[in-house]
Amino acid sequence: MPATAPAKVVLSDKFEAFSDHWRPKIVGELNGHEVKVVKFEGTFVWHAHEREDELFLGWRGRFRVEFRDRTIEVGPGEFIVVPHGVEHRTAADEEAEVVIFEPARTRNTGDVTDARLTAPGDERL
Amino acid sequence: MPATAPAKVVLSDKFEAFSDHWRPKIVGELNGHEVKVVKFEGTFVWHAHEREDELFLGWRGRFRVEFRDRTIEVGPGEFIVVPHGVEHRTAADEEAEVVIFEPARTRNTGDVTDARLTAPGDERL
Repeated sequence: MPATAPAKVVLSDKFEAFSDHWRPKIVGELNGHEVKVVKFEGTFVWHAHEREDELFLGWRGRFRVEFRDRTIEVGPGEFIVVPHGVEHRTAADEEAEVVIFEPARTRNTGDVTDARLTAPGDERL
Repeated sequence: MPATAPAKVVLSDKFEAFSDHWRPKIVGELNGHEVKVVKFEGTFVWHAHEREDELFLGWRGRFRVEFRDRTIEVGPGEFIVVPHGVEHRTAADEEAEVVIFEPARTRNTGDVTDARLTAPGDERL
């Protein structure tokens, strides 16, 4: 296959390939950004990203994006953009599958280091 | 609603709000990129983007991304990244709903101007 003909990515295949929570996997790259897949279950840590805006697209199940002043529920086929500098926390009562779009090398816990939740950031599927 | 709490976007609502083909509508913005929704039906024009990589995510229906040396079929829940500089053409035998992710101000026909197909590029929903 020549380099000019990229392969397609099947999201359901990617989600089937892992079962851990809160550890985004890179599944696509473009223009210095990455497409990641992640499973949410439970409650993440409050954090902000100094420079990076972050998009969360619901794929399966429902999750919440909590801000200090309100909470937004996101389901399949819905997305939210969290602007840089805005403190937020994600949470899901039952497992949710989520597609993330953000600049390459964005750290999942932003300005916070959490022994359990900070992910390597370079896992690929 | 404070500026810190962004609204969510419901993709099905956006797709219900228009019926024209090949005219992407901006539905989200982050880090100098745009999320667009578009309906494909028929065959687009061959073109390339000098600098911009472009992501096509299938939402409803099936479409093709044709390259000079092969064709890739894309359905719901599947995406493809077309690297900058690579000539391509999209096509759909029946209407397909597609989410695009690409740098802001990317022209839909890239290096080509087509009286029928080149879209304004600044339509929002």
